[in-house]
Amino acid sequence: MSGNGLTYAMIGGGTGSFIGAVHRMAIALDGSARLVAGAFSSTPERSKESAAALGVDAERSYADVAELVERESARDDAVDFVVIVTPNHVHYEAAKACLEAGFHVVCDKPFTVTSAQARELRELAESKKRLCAVTYNYSGYPMVREAAELVRSGAIGAVRKCFVEYHQGWLSTDLAATGQKQASWRADPAKAGLGGALGDIGTHAEQLLRFVTGLEIESVCADTTSFVPGRVLDDDASVLMRLSGSAKATLTASQICVGEANGFSIRVYGETGGLVWRQETPEQLVRTALDGSKRILSRGIEPLSSRANTASRLPSGHPEGFIEAFANIYRGVVEHIHAERSGSAPGGMAMQLPLAQDGERGVRFVEACVESAKNGAVWVEI
Amino acid sequence: MSGNGLTYAMIGGGTGSFIGAVHRMAIALDGSARLVAGAFSSTPERSKESAAALGVDAERSYADVAELVERESARDDAVDFVVIVTPNHVHYEAAKACLEAGFHVVCDKPFTVTSAQARELRELAESKKRLCAVTYNYSGYPMVREAAELVRSGAIGAVRKCFVEYHQGWLSTDLAATGQKQASWRADPAKAGLGGALGDIGTHAEQLLRFVTGLEIESVCADTTSFVPGRVLDDDASVLMRLSGSAKATLTASQICVGEANGFSIRVYGETGGLVWRQETPEQLVRTALDGSKRILSRGIEPLSSRANTASRLPSGHPEGFIEAFANIYRGVVEHIHAERSGSAPGGMAMQLPLAQDGERGVRFVEACVESAKNGAVWVEI
Amino acid sequence: MSGNGLTYAMIGGGTGSFIGAVHRMAIALDGSARLVAGAFSSTPERSKESAAALGVDAERSYADVAELVERESARDDAVDFVVIVTPNHVHYEAAKACLEAGFHVVCDKPFTVTSAQARELRELAESKKRLCAVTYNYSGYPMVREAAELVRSGAIGAVRKCFVEYHQGWLSTDLAATGQKQASWRADPAKAGLGGALGDIGTHAEQLLRFVTGLEIESVCADTTSFVPGRVLDDDASVLMRLSGSAKATLTASQICVGEANGFSIRVYGETGGLVWRQETPEQLVRTALDGSKRILSRGIEPLSSRANTASRLPSGHPEGFIEAFANIYRGVVEHIHAERSGSAPGGMAMQLPLAQDGERGVRFVEACVESAKNGAVWVEI
Amino acid sequence: MSGNGLTYAMIGGGTGSFIGAVHRMAIALDGSARLVAGAFSSTPERSKESAAALGVDAERSYADVAELVERESARDDAVDFVVIVTPNHVHYEAAKACLEAGFHVVCDKPFTVTSAQARELRELAESKKRLCAVTYNYSGYPMVREAAELVRSGAIGAVRKCFVEYHQGWLSTDLAATGQKQASWRADPAKAGLGGALGDIGTHAEQLLRFVTGLEIESVCADTTSFVPGRVLDDDASVLMRLSGSAKATLTASQICVGEANGFSIRVYGETGGLVWRQETPEQLVRTALDGSKRILSRGIEPLSSRANTASRLPSGHPEGFIEAFANIYRGVVEHIHAERSGSAPGGMAMQLPLAQDGERGVRFVEACVESAKNGAVWVEI
Repeated sequence: MSGNGLTYAMIGGGTGSFIGAVHRMAIALDGSARLVAGAFSSTPERSKESAAALGVDAERSYADVAELVERESARDDAVDFVVIVTPNHVHYEAAKACLEAGFHVVCDKPFTVTSAQARELRELAESKKRLCAVTYNYSGYPMVREAAELVRSGAIGAVRKCFVEYHQGWLSTDLAATGQKQASWRADPAKAGLGGALGDIGTHAEQLLRFVTGLEIESVCADTTSFVPGRVLDDDASVLMRLSGSAKATLTASQICVGEANGFSIRVYGETGGLVWRQETPEQLVRTALDGSKRILSRGIEPLSSRANTASRLPSGHPEGFIEAFANIYRGVVEHIHAERSGSAPGGMAMQLPLAQDGERGVRFVEACVESAKNGAVWVEI
Repeated sequence: MSGNGLTYAMIGGGTGSFIGAVHRMAIALDGSARLVAGAFSSTPERSKESAAALGVDAERSYADVAELVERESARDDAVDFVVIVTPNHVHYEAAKACLEAGFHVVCDKPFTVTSAQARELRELAESKKRLCAVTYNYSGYPMVREAAELVRSGAIGAVRKCFVEYHQGWLSTDLAATGQKQASWRADPAKAGLGGALGDIGTHAEQLLRFVTGLEIESVCADTTSFVPGRVLDDDASVLMRLSGSAKATLTASQICVGEANGFSIRVYGETGGLVWRQETPEQLVRTALDGSKRILSRGIEPLSSRANTASRLPSGHPEGFIEAFANIYRGVVEHIHAERSGSAPGGMAMQLPLAQDGERGVRFVEACVESAKNGAVWVEI
Repeated sequence: MSGNGLTYAMIGGGTGSFIGAVHRMAIALDGSARLVAGAFSSTPERSKESAAALGVDAERSYADVAELVERESARDDAVDFVVIVTPNHVHYEAAKACLEAGFHVVCDKPFTVTSAQARELRELAESKKRLCAVTYNYSGYPMVREAAELVRSGAIGAVRKCFVEYHQGWLSTDLAATGQKQASWRADPAKAGLGGALGDIGTHAEQLLRFVTGLEIESVCADTTSFVPGRVLDDDASVLMRLSGSAKATLTASQICVGEANGFSIRVYGETGGLVWRQETPEQLVRTALDGSKRILSRGIEPLSSRANTASRLPSGHPEGFIEAFANIYRGVVEHIHAERSGSAPGGMAMQLPLAQDGERGVRFVEACVESAKNGAVWVEI
Repeated sequence: MSGNGLTYAMIGGGTGSFIGAVHRMAIALDGSARLVAGAFSSTPERSKESAAALGVDAERSYADVAELVERESARDDAVDFVVIVTPNHVHYEAAKACLEAGFHVVCDKPFTVTSAQARELRELAESKKRLCAVTYNYSGYPMVREAAELVRSGAIGAVRKCFVEYHQGWLSTDLAATGQKQASWRADPAKAGLGGALGDIGTHAEQLLRFVTGLEIESVCADTTSFVPGRVLDDDASVLMRLSGSAKATLTASQICVGEANGFSIRVYGETGGLVWRQETPEQLVRTALDGSKRILSRGIEPLSSRANTASRLPSGHPEGFIEAFANIYRGVVEHIHAERSGSAPGGMAMQLPLAQDGERGVRFVEACVESAKNGAVWVEI
């Protein structure tokens, strides 16, 4: 729509996929790129059906990753980047193939099943000088970016204590046993990786904490549980954390909080102020101060930083949401690719992109928590 | 993106336009149609610039409405519909020309400057059997549609009293005097019409009331004010209203409520229950009952009607907002056009489209309020 | 408890009275005075029973107002003030008798049935130099007092437009027909006066508006309804108002808003700022500004005025409520009486007491609204 | 006021005491008892001054606990119970002396400095058959009691995971160094005991968790910090907990959450539902269900249990708060004493009283957390 001319292919995200449709809407919202190719499903037939439904030419509807990489590489009008939205266990192979062939990659989270895979992909992207972004989409919210900017600017002083939580209720019963698609693969360690709630939503929480505070998680002490009978992976995790800079944090991720939809929030308290953001009311950021005052900062209302303002599309009071935040990730992707091609320095949106190194930290976080919990909640370094 | 193949032209909405960009994002979100033509500005030169920026071919970038209508009509691949997002006073001529040439029209609100113009357009659309939709976008929110459905289903009994308010603060000072574009034309009766706040936001409130309750406004008793020195049109209006079915309502529309962003809400109380919806938290609908209980209904959480569910894109807890609601209007446009072409009955989204008759009611509402206020707040029938 | 030694008598407020118990708790909270006498019911027998239950000596349990006045006047240890908490129609006779005998009076609202009675009581109190306070208790909330102070200090500039509303749902059905005591006398014009919702809650709204803004209501244009079949008095009123200083306001009072408990709020917008207070979250006051910012001011959190701070008992975050606000009215009564006796100037709590003149304005407000509505919503001066 | 005739003495709570005044208001609100004696300060002189200010006869103003116990015991009209509101380290000696002399005791929390002391007091109260209540006042809120009742009734199924947090910001700086009275003794291990935030507010959180869920905390894994330089005791604690019945919980107590006033909340998720209560909006309890629905239960709105209704004084929408909740503890004390004297079974309010055994659990909780943290966050049984 904006005539920037970029095109992309998608791996996964066929009919019935929730997250694939979200990625496509996020890209379409700003006209960031056009979907022109894909390997949408694990079976060639369903992949073709999805391609047709999505308006992708049959000739660019591929049976699998290998075919996509081979044939797109051979085209003059090859796609500019590839979006990977398969179940977790496929990410590694798909991203590896794309990067090796020289494609920029945007990969869903959690990045990979093992941190060794993640490290390999990070190094591969670095050596190939290709973008390898990981869609930690919550960091695209304007008020999250405002929070990050306020911390950097010293508005709350040195960070002392953070609380980050991601509470859902949709796995309170054995949904996987009913065959529900989203629940089923997440319940299977072979597809989801080591973490259940830890991997699916805990990694979002972990990344948001790092994104907002700029601190690294140095060690964790985790207690995890599989509350629902028959479930193999954790559906609930509570983690004590020590951060760089002598800060501390607690992180709780749970999918058995009955009735909670997407209760994701972060609270950061520093020496002189605090910041509270809740995903279900994403347009506000509460800023607290030593004098006890609470100010509600709102998207679109001055004074906000340029980081927040450039991530915003509408005037204040006209609610933006999940898709707009997600779209900001893709704005960064587009900015990165254009900057790379024009040889200019990447702009602010590109600089805020979560990358392979963030994906690697996320997988390492899950591994450390699982190790800690297995040993009865001991401290494990990340 | 969805391959449905529709195309559209835009009149107005060039560089610097707020609402034009919103329409385009709303259409792009679902891939409802592709922008391929336009007359984007009042000067041909700026129109061309906007066309280029928007990726529209130069040959379909037109100098004015007349040229657009003439040359698009002559094409085999003429656009399927025209979106009109100019200042108010241009709506009538533009819509008339498009309808006469046989184009489907989607027009911003308030529909026209006079109700006579609106009636003429309504009759023209009827005789030409063309769609003439008016973008009362707030009726696209899923929870607004749920509210409408609950009223229809008898969930709150016969409606007794409604409170609808639309409070903003952005015109608390003489913004037009600073040359701010949005404020300037709204301050000019020749461009905005008879109503200031009444026309700009009061008509949204009036339409939402009718959409949710299904009742007509029979008469109004209005007190209007221009609080800011030098302003000609009202910046504040308070209206007592009598509705069909012996119901009553108050409507307040104000643009001098300092600090309010987009405080639009509706509260409907019937014999056995009540419904409260606020645009700044659009994902929730509060339902009250005779026993004093309050239930929070949330988008995506059962039990909701199919009207709400089909207007929803994401799982609960992943906030949708203004653009998604706006996009639902365009889903209705697309459904309508496809149904018309296939000769099938239009689906639910099309049936909920605000049309010329709604636009006409809105203009008539403004006229009646202005007449009432001019005579010191007397009752005027609509 | 505080050893200040004041005593009081109560007229009305026997068993089954809601408001009598509230007055007693409000007085007891601070040990403002001790209840030592009373004529608690319309029958001597039930009055005695109430006296016994309340720990009042039998010899100071009186059959009626006349006896109370006569015998208390004759005592050396006569009560310091009399609290009148009967149904509305008894207020006038009771207050008149007490004032004539030289007692300070605290009377519930609405003050009297006619404004002529109210004027007479006001003049009587003035000539006798006795206190005649009216328990507009909502003006006792600390954050209401902060709002009043902020307006006085110029924090929001000249007031332009106010919205005050008091919405309840408890009379959505014909509760009086069931014999429910509170509903029954309120439904009877002989006991309640001219106003239904107008008198019962509309007067609270009217007084709060005057208390916060310092402006007078100059004229009203009212539409009232008795929605519930068989009800004589209004159960719903919508009022357009013109205030001194060229400000305007809307006031809505309704008791058929199904499911609303005590939805009392005030919003005041001036030239440079706004203030929003809601009774159901009384500890907060939202302050808005031209730059769109919203600050939450909280009881106990600096910077607040001394008017708010002296009306507060607990640290911030330890919720205070309805009884504490009510008790602040009685703190004013005690301050007034002590100042009068010591010949000193009354302190700040006494200076904020709603008095007979406020009660008179309230009754006049009801009369004017009823007259306006009877004539089809015409403007009536107060 | 209610003529029940009980009297009490107070130890501590003189001029400048916050909590002493709260206890007195809570008792006065319902006229639960009359304050007639006391040893209000650590110096006889200031004790006398406080007594005079509080209206206590000079002859019942005692120099210290020993004198109070000796001389009150000798009176025919000895007080019915003694309220202990001193700094923590005095609780044990004062309570012991009172219990040994046969007085009923109401003691502030945390109960004692060591769990050995607490156990001794519990056994002493049992052997003397005297009441020894501990004022965990938050368990007096009606909606907390409703939550407890709902858990007992099976409304949310077996409890799985709880989150309880108590976050304040008032100790974000070294307030004790400024000499602020409340901060100073809390900072001194000799007066406060082993716990800082743990003892002061962590024990409230621990008791609320037990009160609502009916579960016991079996073991803890705690990380504590003294963020403010120079502070000896913890000002922040994060605790993983294992509860009876295979449930788990996290508890965080912090006094360095800048800008938070009294952010105390509990969230309990069971197999089929959840409950969320926040102290700063104490009138509501949110109930969640497997279908994703959220219902707001409000004090005074049916259907509530009798436990909630008997703890309520006002109609819904008339906010009750901290003092009313505190007063419910004293209603239980009065009920207990009356039942004991009449030989009848204690009523519902008495049965919900937190007792010495609860105080003992609280001190043991602090000890276990301190031990866990000292050893680097290991599991410690309580």
